[in-house]
Amino acid sequence: MLRWLTAGESHGPELVAIIEGLPAGIPVSLDSIRADLARRKLGYGRGSRMKFEEDQLTISGGVRHGESLGSPIALRIGNTEWPKWVEVMSPEKVEATETSRGRNAPLTRPRPGHADLVGMQKYGFDEARPILERASARETAARVALGAVARSFLGELGIELVSHTLSIGPVRVPEGAALPKPGDVDALDADPLRCFDAATSARMVAEVNDAKHTGDTLGGVVEVLAYNLPPGLGSHVHWDRRLDGQLAQALMGIQAIKGVEIGDGFLTTTRRGSEAHDELFQIGDEILRSSDKAGGTEGGMSTGTVLRVRAGMKPIATVPHSLRTVDVATGEAAGAHHQRSDVCAVPAAGVVAEAMVALVLANSVLEKFGGDSIEETRRNLKAYLAAIPTE
Amino acid sequence: MLRWLTAGESHGPELVAIIEGLPAGIPVSLDSIRADLARRKLGYGRGSRMKFEEDQLTISGGVRHGESLGSPIALRIGNTEWPKWVEVMSPEKVEATETSRGRNAPLTRPRPGHADLVGMQKYGFDEARPILERASARETAARVALGAVARSFLGELGIELVSHTLSIGPVRVPEGAALPKPGDVDALDADPLRCFDAATSARMVAEVNDAKHTGDTLGGVVEVLAYNLPPGLGSHVHWDRRLDGQLAQALMGIQAIKGVEIGDGFLTTTRRGSEAHDELFQIGDEILRSSDKAGGTEGGMSTGTVLRVRAGMKPIATVPHSLRTVDVATGEAAGAHHQRSDVCAVPAAGVVAEAMVALVLANSVLEKFGGDSIEETRRNLKAYLAAIPTE
Amino acid sequence: MLRWLTAGESHGPELVAIIEGLPAGIPVSLDSIRADLARRKLGYGRGSRMKFEEDQLTISGGVRHGESLGSPIALRIGNTEWPKWVEVMSPEKVEATETSRGRNAPLTRPRPGHADLVGMQKYGFDEARPILERASARETAARVALGAVARSFLGELGIELVSHTLSIGPVRVPEGAALPKPGDVDALDADPLRCFDAATSARMVAEVNDAKHTGDTLGGVVEVLAYNLPPGLGSHVHWDRRLDGQLAQALMGIQAIKGVEIGDGFLTTTRRGSEAHDELFQIGDEILRSSDKAGGTEGGMSTGTVLRVRAGMKPIATVPHSLRTVDVATGEAAGAHHQRSDVCAVPAAGVVAEAMVALVLANSVLEKFGGDSIEETRRNLKAYLAAIPTE
Amino acid sequence: MLRWLTAGESHGPELVAIIEGLPAGIPVSLDSIRADLARRKLGYGRGSRMKFEEDQLTISGGVRHGESLGSPIALRIGNTEWPKWVEVMSPEKVEATETSRGRNAPLTRPRPGHADLVGMQKYGFDEARPILERASARETAARVALGAVARSFLGELGIELVSHTLSIGPVRVPEGAALPKPGDVDALDADPLRCFDAATSARMVAEVNDAKHTGDTLGGVVEVLAYNLPPGLGSHVHWDRRLDGQLAQALMGIQAIKGVEIGDGFLTTTRRGSEAHDELFQIGDEILRSSDKAGGTEGGMSTGTVLRVRAGMKPIATVPHSLRTVDVATGEAAGAHHQRSDVCAVPAAGVVAEAMVALVLANSVLEKFGGDSIEETRRNLKAYLAAIPTE
Repeated sequence: MLRWLTAGESHGPELVAIIEGLPAGIPVSLDSIRADLARRKLGYGRGSRMKFEEDQLTISGGVRHGESLGSPIALRIGNTEWPKWVEVMSPEKVEATETSRGRNAPLTRPRPGHADLVGMQKYGFDEARPILERASARETAARVALGAVARSFLGELGIELVSHTLSIGPVRVPEGAALPKPGDVDALDADPLRCFDAATSARMVAEVNDAKHTGDTLGGVVEVLAYNLPPGLGSHVHWDRRLDGQLAQALMGIQAIKGVEIGDGFLTTTRRGSEAHDELFQIGDEILRSSDKAGGTEGGMSTGTVLRVRAGMKPIATVPHSLRTVDVATGEAAGAHHQRSDVCAVPAAGVVAEAMVALVLANSVLEKFGGDSIEETRRNLKAYLAAIPTE
Repeated sequence: MLRWLTAGESHGPELVAIIEGLPAGIPVSLDSIRADLARRKLGYGRGSRMKFEEDQLTISGGVRHGESLGSPIALRIGNTEWPKWVEVMSPEKVEATETSRGRNAPLTRPRPGHADLVGMQKYGFDEARPILERASARETAARVALGAVARSFLGELGIELVSHTLSIGPVRVPEGAALPKPGDVDALDADPLRCFDAATSARMVAEVNDAKHTGDTLGGVVEVLAYNLPPGLGSHVHWDRRLDGQLAQALMGIQAIKGVEIGDGFLTTTRRGSEAHDELFQIGDEILRSSDKAGGTEGGMSTGTVLRVRAGMKPIATVPHSLRTVDVATGEAAGAHHQRSDVCAVPAAGVVAEAMVALVLANSVLEKFGGDSIEETRRNLKAYLAAIPTE
Repeated sequence: MLRWLTAGESHGPELVAIIEGLPAGIPVSLDSIRADLARRKLGYGRGSRMKFEEDQLTISGGVRHGESLGSPIALRIGNTEWPKWVEVMSPEKVEATETSRGRNAPLTRPRPGHADLVGMQKYGFDEARPILERASARETAARVALGAVARSFLGELGIELVSHTLSIGPVRVPEGAALPKPGDVDALDADPLRCFDAATSARMVAEVNDAKHTGDTLGGVVEVLAYNLPPGLGSHVHWDRRLDGQLAQALMGIQAIKGVEIGDGFLTTTRRGSEAHDELFQIGDEILRSSDKAGGTEGGMSTGTVLRVRAGMKPIATVPHSLRTVDVATGEAAGAHHQRSDVCAVPAAGVVAEAMVALVLANSVLEKFGGDSIEETRRNLKAYLAAIPTE
Repeated sequence: MLRWLTAGESHGPELVAIIEGLPAGIPVSLDSIRADLARRKLGYGRGSRMKFEEDQLTISGGVRHGESLGSPIALRIGNTEWPKWVEVMSPEKVEATETSRGRNAPLTRPRPGHADLVGMQKYGFDEARPILERASARETAARVALGAVARSFLGELGIELVSHTLSIGPVRVPEGAALPKPGDVDALDADPLRCFDAATSARMVAEVNDAKHTGDTLGGVVEVLAYNLPPGLGSHVHWDRRLDGQLAQALMGIQAIKGVEIGDGFLTTTRRGSEAHDELFQIGDEILRSSDKAGGTEGGMSTGTVLRVRAGMKPIATVPHSLRTVDVATGEAAGAHHQRSDVCAVPAAGVVAEAMVALVLANSVLEKFGGDSIEETRRNLKAYLAAIPTE
């Protein structure tokens, strides 16, 4: 059982994350985690925060001399802007006279499409600051850091993840386009939208430019692929053991995600049965599938073919032409607060989605293979693969 | 915390389900559960099993004199066909000479689109019977029975659920069509496809007829609506507390579901930010939303507007014109086993999805409001609603 | 992850239990479970219910032809007295006129030492029936049935459990007496108190006779031993992964248990450090311990020596000379209801404790070794043991 | 549902802890947490580390302007000795030539009574450093910090905790001595052994002096009391909902604890039923108990009387006259490493036990009453108490 918690507010001193349950002996380095944190800032259409927001990464526990100890791993990501926010976000009480001005003014105009209003109702606040600080996508940096550790674990077992952008607003990679492979990640990261189809990428850039020009924002769809999974992660025996369901929660649990698909997803619902499934045939000792419409799962289990899952992100809700809202302090109609200026964060969402998939898969691997050292987990995995009957 | 487990094989003696964590005083009756079990069999295009499969329902514990006791509730659904299957599915050892014939012959041709092959690999079986018995959608009857109990609990708090069919194969209810309300459930259940749009329903019937005629199967999309939810179920503070994520797992955890959407889902990803969100305004003391594109959640919390979630079901994988597979006993190419004859199970999937949503919401309500008797939960809910600040 | 739920009331139609997460291929038979259910009724000093209460056992799912399928296993234990209780415990509404007499009269005199009063307060009932039906130790039959399955799983890995009685009231096996081994179980079950020391057993019988004579009841202490555990179950890395802590919850979670010890437990707290620990030495390739004061755990992990845990049971709270209480319907002082006539249930508590330990160990084994078939779990365990470095 | 994780090694840069699930509006201050951390160092017989080990406390998230936000709360406790240990415990790879000397020499002589040997076997290490760093009781500082937050939450609801020392080695407070109350905590903290009985405390000091003189160590028993609990925390309906069981795991999950008792615990097992239970009587509208032998729980639920639980701690395993062990690098007999010099840590264990009880109770309160703000939880609690029927 893999457990992990994150903490920290968007403008607080730091994000903190703990992951518990990974075996000993996994390579963990500041550089590899930093590399993923940097990938999270990629993408044409990001606002200014991404530029000045440098990630100060610390490993607080669970790792010694470059390898995991088997104990909980703790990571911290410092907020380089913290000095500007000390008074607003101080954990300690501050003088009321100071706190009523400027940055610290109550945010009484909840933003549509955000957690602001309902969060205030739920937690009993009369302004949105205590809500939006945690609801912000800044928190995903902690997930990406943990995801980097999970990916290192999977990498030791030969499992590799790739994420890419399928669509930006209405601009979409053509159905049937080639899928990126692990060797294509550098090229993807170099693409302005992390799109694997050059022609589509160019159209996406134009779409971002147009949205920016009109003071608007964009959403899109990302896809995560996992290569070299063993068959049999997850299970059909109980609904909450299904790998597809766990992936769905993990992806829908990312800020702004409104839809999730496994394999061809909703497209499959329009096909007839004779055209919708991956037929089986045998070559030598191995049983293979004729296609991967299912996205690499059957009966809630990984089949061993490429896992393919998608997440659909709504357009950023903080729109430059501010949306209509109510000032809860006065009851007057108002324009929503506008605090950030990304046009499109879809490429970053791909990196976050990759992290979430890595965390789910790491848990599934441990559930099936156990192990307290990477050698033990790897040994169990190999023995399982060797024992799968083939004719 | 609400926990529940189901057990039982498709052709075993019975399904068993236990739900633990519900308060005392919830009305629970055999009739109301039976009614939902009957609704699960609805829908034009179902095969013969639905007709002869009568549900023998028993309440084994947790209910006395028509009300829950606060203790775990156990339900059983007997299999009326059990006498035919005693030898095949006997929990006790049976004579080998008897078990090698007929119904009990090893199923060595795993069916594409099913758990068969990967389940055999995972659990170490050389035939599919031990896998397909549990992977079968028969198990969803247990979920529907538990869902009926959860719905009774929600009903005591004024929360009502409705499910309906949005599409069958390529035939889809027009965007913007009216949503069914709790009062429309009888009409929905009377519709051949549980579709709220009469014209579309007629086209769906034609589609089913055509698929049947060509020996094929169909999938589709269902939508579940929850009316009268309080704001603040779920939370933005941690990814796995998000209501949207929990709903996504619950829906994707249903057999054959390949996609999940909250509100407008993937359609939202194609809109620009200025058109994608539900703006806020105030009438009297109440803050309202101009639309419900988000599907009733913001920041992973229920907003108090209608919750709206969708699940996309692939076409039935057991296609009359059997799909190609391999006989694992011989390594020869073969046609897949064909054991059932539904053309389309989408209307039933709506009823199952409704049950899963009910179970998730019941858990969220208890997480927020606690309570060991229905009076206590209701009292806490009411006091919360009364305390929500309005101008 | 192993999960299990039980349901059912003491005088309801049946107990139901589901266990989920066990691998495929475990031998499961009605006879072996029945044998453990019979052992739960052993012991000198049991009342009449034990005699007429025959356990009608059914396996509802998860087992086929004598072996587990990897799917959830469901068991039922019918109540042979059910016909007498149908009206009192009917899940369906019954006529009020009938229900107000005799067996069904409200139990308004909560019994001291039972869940009655606080249960009524918590769940909002004005009589104790809805509480005591579930709080009754009858429920432990369901745990024993599940424990028999867990024990079969452990047995396939060579792990064997033994339980015995250490004390009845003030009569206690001398410190340092020999521990029973797996081969001694039949002899233990034949002893009137399941005590391994013949002389002490005779004194225990006298103590029971004396208590019966004076209209009183007795408690005592039981000990569970697990032989042939691998080292490394549980973990030091997080408090709730500690095996000793999990065992403590499992044992304290049995009705009437008020104390738990690992190894020498409280006696160890009176020793000085130089005398309290198990020193290490090496013979051949193997590192051994000079003693087992620790009870087979260090740092919250099994060491591979005999696991030894104890549970202390209070005397039965339903005392023939009834304890003083209050009639909540009138506010008058009253004598407590007296429904059963056991003098001492300690030997049975040993069998229940054994079941709980088996369930905890089965979970720990799966956490460390994984596996979806007994072959896979066994292979992983053997490879781990083979890889433990020895000089 | 309250979740919490801790991370960090004994000589690493810091301990980190995250707690998730507490409502908003709880007072949280550095000073109050520091006060508990200081109490954890109390006690006659502590070694030098307690003196120089200053706790550098940071709140990283979840708290703003002195109150909880409802989001996860993260705390850090810096290790002031970290500069000495950078090379030994660096998360990054360090030059092998440097790491082979002095502090960083492999610890190949596993200490009896510690996690060392079995931890090495489980996690696949050839020396004990990676194990003992996490198994050390230093980790309990993180629990105490989280416990201080939980206690503040409980305090807002009127619930107060007290811990005290019952015995040191064979020296024990007489049965029937008065229990300390919340107002006695300062006096307890001022006592050398945190013992409430002055005469016993003096004998305990003498016992510690004697043990120190002979190069030995001591264990003992602590008791935690909780005042003003509502009735009905925990439940009888399922074994793992029982409050007594949860407390047992929490206490046994503390390093070096080998026994746990609820109320009179094992003493109760020697009493006859007529003398072992707390009888009920009524004064005015209230039902009271004649005694508190049960320790404030019946049927696994808090009764509303004083909760009373005990934990027995073995003597410190690092004995100045070192215990016999084996050098795993050579297979030779050896003396165990001796790294610390406490004679007795029992008073500190009381403070840790208090923290664990606070965390369990906080979870139980949230399970029963829910609430996302302290006002909401308090309102629900008050309404429940007001509704408890009294004659």
